[in-house]
Amino acid sequence: MKQFMDENFLLTTKTAERLFHQVAAFQPIYDYHCHLDAKEIYEDRHFENITELWLGGDHYKWRLMRAAGIREKYITGDACDYDKFVSYCRAIQFAAGNPLYHWSHLELRRYFGVEKILTEKNAPAIWEEVNRKISGKDFSARALIRQSNVELVGTTDDPVSDLRWHKALREDESFKTRVVPTFRPDKAIQIEKSDFADYIRKLGNRAGAEIDSFGALCAALSKRMDFFAEAGCRISDHSLPTVPLAEISEEKAGQAFQKAMAGEPICQEEIGTYQLTLLFALGREYAKRGWVMQLHLSALRNNSSRMFTELGADSGFDSIGDLAQAQGLSRYMDALDFENQLPKMILYSLNPNDLSVLAAMAGNFQSDGIKGKIQLGSAWWFNDHIDGIMQQIKTLANMGALDTFVGMLTDSRSFLSYPRHEYFRRILCAIVGEWVENGLFPNDWELLERLIAGVSYQNAAQYFNM
Amino acid sequence: MKQFMDENFLLTTKTAERLFHQVAAFQPIYDYHCHLDAKEIYEDRHFENITELWLGGDHYKWRLMRAAGIREKYITGDACDYDKFVSYCRAIQFAAGNPLYHWSHLELRRYFGVEKILTEKNAPAIWEEVNRKISGKDFSARALIRQSNVELVGTTDDPVSDLRWHKALREDESFKTRVVPTFRPDKAIQIEKSDFADYIRKLGNRAGAEIDSFGALCAALSKRMDFFAEAGCRISDHSLPTVPLAEISEEKAGQAFQKAMAGEPICQEEIGTYQLTLLFALGREYAKRGWVMQLHLSALRNNSSRMFTELGADSGFDSIGDLAQAQGLSRYMDALDFENQLPKMILYSLNPNDLSVLAAMAGNFQSDGIKGKIQLGSAWWFNDHIDGIMQQIKTLANMGALDTFVGMLTDSRSFLSYPRHEYFRRILCAIVGEWVENGLFPNDWELLERLIAGVSYQNAAQYFNM
Amino acid sequence: MKQFMDENFLLTTKTAERLFHQVAAFQPIYDYHCHLDAKEIYEDRHFENITELWLGGDHYKWRLMRAAGIREKYITGDACDYDKFVSYCRAIQFAAGNPLYHWSHLELRRYFGVEKILTEKNAPAIWEEVNRKISGKDFSARALIRQSNVELVGTTDDPVSDLRWHKALREDESFKTRVVPTFRPDKAIQIEKSDFADYIRKLGNRAGAEIDSFGALCAALSKRMDFFAEAGCRISDHSLPTVPLAEISEEKAGQAFQKAMAGEPICQEEIGTYQLTLLFALGREYAKRGWVMQLHLSALRNNSSRMFTELGADSGFDSIGDLAQAQGLSRYMDALDFENQLPKMILYSLNPNDLSVLAAMAGNFQSDGIKGKIQLGSAWWFNDHIDGIMQQIKTLANMGALDTFVGMLTDSRSFLSYPRHEYFRRILCAIVGEWVENGLFPNDWELLERLIAGVSYQNAAQYFNM
Repeated sequence: MKQFMDENFLLTTKTAERLFHQVAAFQPIYDYHCHLDAKEIYEDRHFENITELWLGGDHYKWRLMRAAGIREKYITGDACDYDKFVSYCRAIQFAAGNPLYHWSHLELRRYFGVEKILTEKNAPAIWEEVNRKISGKDFSARALIRQSNVELVGTTDDPVSDLRWHKALREDESFKTRVVPTFRPDKAIQIEKSDFADYIRKLGNRAGAEIDSFGALCAALSKRMDFFAEAGCRISDHSLPTVPLAEISEEKAGQAFQKAMAGEPICQEEIGTYQLTLLFALGREYAKRGWVMQLHLSALRNNSSRMFTELGADSGFDSIGDLAQAQGLSRYMDALDFENQLPKMILYSLNPNDLSVLAAMAGNFQSDGIKGKIQLGSAWWFNDHIDGIMQQIKTLANMGALDTFVGMLTDSRSFLSYPRHEYFRRILCAIVGEWVENGLFPNDWELLERLIAGVSYQNAAQYFNM
Repeated sequence: MKQFMDENFLLTTKTAERLFHQVAAFQPIYDYHCHLDAKEIYEDRHFENITELWLGGDHYKWRLMRAAGIREKYITGDACDYDKFVSYCRAIQFAAGNPLYHWSHLELRRYFGVEKILTEKNAPAIWEEVNRKISGKDFSARALIRQSNVELVGTTDDPVSDLRWHKALREDESFKTRVVPTFRPDKAIQIEKSDFADYIRKLGNRAGAEIDSFGALCAALSKRMDFFAEAGCRISDHSLPTVPLAEISEEKAGQAFQKAMAGEPICQEEIGTYQLTLLFALGREYAKRGWVMQLHLSALRNNSSRMFTELGADSGFDSIGDLAQAQGLSRYMDALDFENQLPKMILYSLNPNDLSVLAAMAGNFQSDGIKGKIQLGSAWWFNDHIDGIMQQIKTLANMGALDTFVGMLTDSRSFLSYPRHEYFRRILCAIVGEWVENGLFPNDWELLERLIAGVSYQNAAQYFNM
Repeated sequence: MKQFMDENFLLTTKTAERLFHQVAAFQPIYDYHCHLDAKEIYEDRHFENITELWLGGDHYKWRLMRAAGIREKYITGDACDYDKFVSYCRAIQFAAGNPLYHWSHLELRRYFGVEKILTEKNAPAIWEEVNRKISGKDFSARALIRQSNVELVGTTDDPVSDLRWHKALREDESFKTRVVPTFRPDKAIQIEKSDFADYIRKLGNRAGAEIDSFGALCAALSKRMDFFAEAGCRISDHSLPTVPLAEISEEKAGQAFQKAMAGEPICQEEIGTYQLTLLFALGREYAKRGWVMQLHLSALRNNSSRMFTELGADSGFDSIGDLAQAQGLSRYMDALDFENQLPKMILYSLNPNDLSVLAAMAGNFQSDGIKGKIQLGSAWWFNDHIDGIMQQIKTLANMGALDTFVGMLTDSRSFLSYPRHEYFRRILCAIVGEWVENGLFPNDWELLERLIAGVSYQNAAQYFNM
């Protein structure tokens, strides 16, 4: 029997151990997509206690607590931090199989050297020990990033952002990790939302021009891209239920835009045409700039209106959609490709059923001699667990070229999430190790080393080129 | 090499053996959802022979026989019982991997002590040996339930049922297993069926009031719920292809109801509105009573009109649908939750692709400090096999809190199906055992014992509280 | 550690080794569905070099090369054959997990005795060694088929084909492998295509009658079926995104047909009605003749218009669709079954999510005492890899009768693809071997031998009966 989470955690063969300890473990972290706050990095935020660090904004943990029967008071409510921490321990202690179980223990071990098992019984001792350490200087935002060997942090930012903290960080030579923004214009796409017109006015203010037409909107977004590029941005990101199966028409998109700005109702077809036409215009801009476009598909957000009213978005009430993805995505990519203006793309879906569709779709548009131009994105959110990571890696390997994969990202709001890269790398090494020891891939160190180092770090560094 | 189905069948590690033999095996069976006939239990039905017991109503076996090339005469036709039994042996003998293969052997072993392999060659000897035993008193309906350590049997009942056998069983102190009805108002939902109006009249008769409006229908159903509650009912059940993505409107539902009662045609939109509005009204009633609502989604029934004409429903001609589930279900649950009237729910889908969608959906509505308020239901019907059970358990573990799971049910029409609980528990212990021995969960007996006992029995007892 | 691809490649237990080496390996190959060119077989084509043999028309390899960042010049462009071969080696060397990796090495070993690993470094030596052998007489089309122990080759043919090479092959007694055509009338179904009317005129010419009505079309196709039957054809094949959920109406189909022939636009509903009505008519014809009907569902073809313009169809720009399959397929099969005119069918989907739906659907229409009348088709195209094959076998085993399965096919355009049968059989033996050694199936040689021999070869020979 293996010890719980020992140094060979998840490494199921000798080859896997060798690959992880000799190759993967030493690679820097290129965290190209997360939700960290650049301000907190710049100001080098310090934390009061483990509850603030762990439970302050982590809706993954909140969901688990709710499922375990913890009352909201002890999750996002007015209970004291100690009671919240004990409640989390009560929830997590039986959560066998949940990635939070492993992440939480990895974080305790890697950052705090705490080897205790998270149980209700151990909660007081862990509370004491971790909080004592948190009060020291090694656990500020920057310190946590620094000790995690992070080369790059890619935050997620609205086009209206002034990126002031990103700029400040670029000028601060004392912090070596690059912190770059990602251009995420979801609010400009979401014409069906009630705050659309307000947002467009705000965007116009930022871009220094009134946005009174679809063309003016595209121009304003293009200006903001230039502004983002100056701050080091080379990536965009879109979250969509699905790419609309609609017409690309600047004229009709313009009409829908005018209606929305005037507060008139617009129908589903108009929404689709507007969205697809804007996505098309943006795709061309990304291609022109050599940016990578990320598509995060199939999230179904804010399912509980009651809790949305209480807590707002990103509080643990999102789940997985099941709309068809293939045709809309195909037509969209084809339209850009036909004009030789398809940017590099990473395709994610929150629905694991879409993995094969996306992997095969990526294969339709590989071109230009770019290694892995279209990527099947890493296991995302609800799929970010051992089975999900294995399924993503194997789907890609079965249908494409695993060695081109840009690998893992944290997608996290927490400064303690970097062990998710370790988790991913261990699983990657386990899969490849089993292939080798079962005679499915040659035991050739040169090949193996390049494969593991590539997927752990080098492919991403080369692909994003930031 | 392990012996075929020995005492450590399915138990892949020492830890799994310990968990099963020391914990899971001793837990009572809380079979909260099945299709047994309360009358047969009350009357303590005796069986003539193994064909009557095994092949009388088991459409799982019929399907396998048809696939194996057995003619209908030897399945549901007029062949003699012996020939039918031999035909089943011929079909099952090569059915490697099919759960029927394991279930059939488990049943022979656990109830009859017969260790012979089911082959055409062994058929005569098994026929003799089993039938000799069946004629004894240990193999009546009650005896089979009793020796299976069953604490509760939840049958499935139409609102018009008089529940006379349930009541008789409650009054019969000689039988310790509780037999409780489940409220399944599918026929009141299926407004599109040709016998809808007839059914509504029957329901009115039972409820003692003419049902001449949508409101009257809701009132009648509510009355029947009270009647069911008196007989110990705390669970409802609905089978739907999908929860309609429709409007909730009592007015429009009422109009559709009037049309249907008058025999006028109604369109798809009216059907959806009627169904969703009724589901909404029922959900509130369930919540008010503290009942659990089961949703069985994505069955596609009676695919062969030819065989439906010959044999009627539930004869082995149902299969798996593939409609989208996420949005309709989300809006329905949200509507109830918004009014704080969402009952406890168990979400099943016959389509294994829906597992992730349902697991994530459940996470949106966990609340009220109820442990596992919204459940991802056990692997259902075509998914009730080793891979399906593992996938359900792992999906739940990956995305939620495995320790809150109310576990297995037989969903069966047969008195011999209780070994399906054993099958499930062995697989559960195998999964957890591998986690422990691979270092993915601590080897902590206290935690493990609570987890296994909880999922095997205690969670269900606590959750249903019947 | 197992050696890379040694004699026990993929065989994970002693039982698997025995099953493969003593049973599966000796079975002939009954390759009932492929895309070989009968002319090339008749003329016994010889190849210049490994590039011509491997990369001439293999869009699987082209896709991998594109993904790996190889420029089109070195894939389908005007680079020299040597450079193309080296480019393929560069692409494949890291493609761990991709079935091409195993297929390519199997082909090198089985046909050329080359044990070298495919790397860029080894490329020159492999190029030399293989090409030296190719120039000999043992590597012509016929020689490759002959040494692969192929009993039957089922090609894929348009109804307008004159089948001249099939006839010539039937008359050539020097070649023992039977080469039979498959009737694939996709172009008669695709009424929405711009070349539909031209195609229908061509078909009329072949059938010797003007096709001026839907009835005349059916009659012409029936005539061509008779013609195909004379050439040994007993199988049809259809590729469809999904079976339309439409009306069967000869009248409306006829109207749509007239419009299409007149070049008038037709709407989605008309297309569906026409297609379903024609599929219904064809199904009856197949049933009448005792033919097997293959349905290949859910391919999404020619996604890149840019590359379609450059290279045409089947160049590596197809992928996986995600339309719903269950209802349309159910109604279609039911309509035929209701008239007792449902032919034997094999259901394939390119989307692995459809496996459960299709396996369960097959179970609805098993009848007539035909063993495995409705088949869940082998893992197809993008699913033809270890995980996909395992998933297909296990889905079938879980939901149906594995022992009825007609097994593997190459679906290939290459004369070197027969090791895909070996690959499949090794995986089959691995699965069954694990069941036996884990106590899930009896260690009974007689049962096991029949199961393995059946799925490897005998079921297909009996089912197709050609």
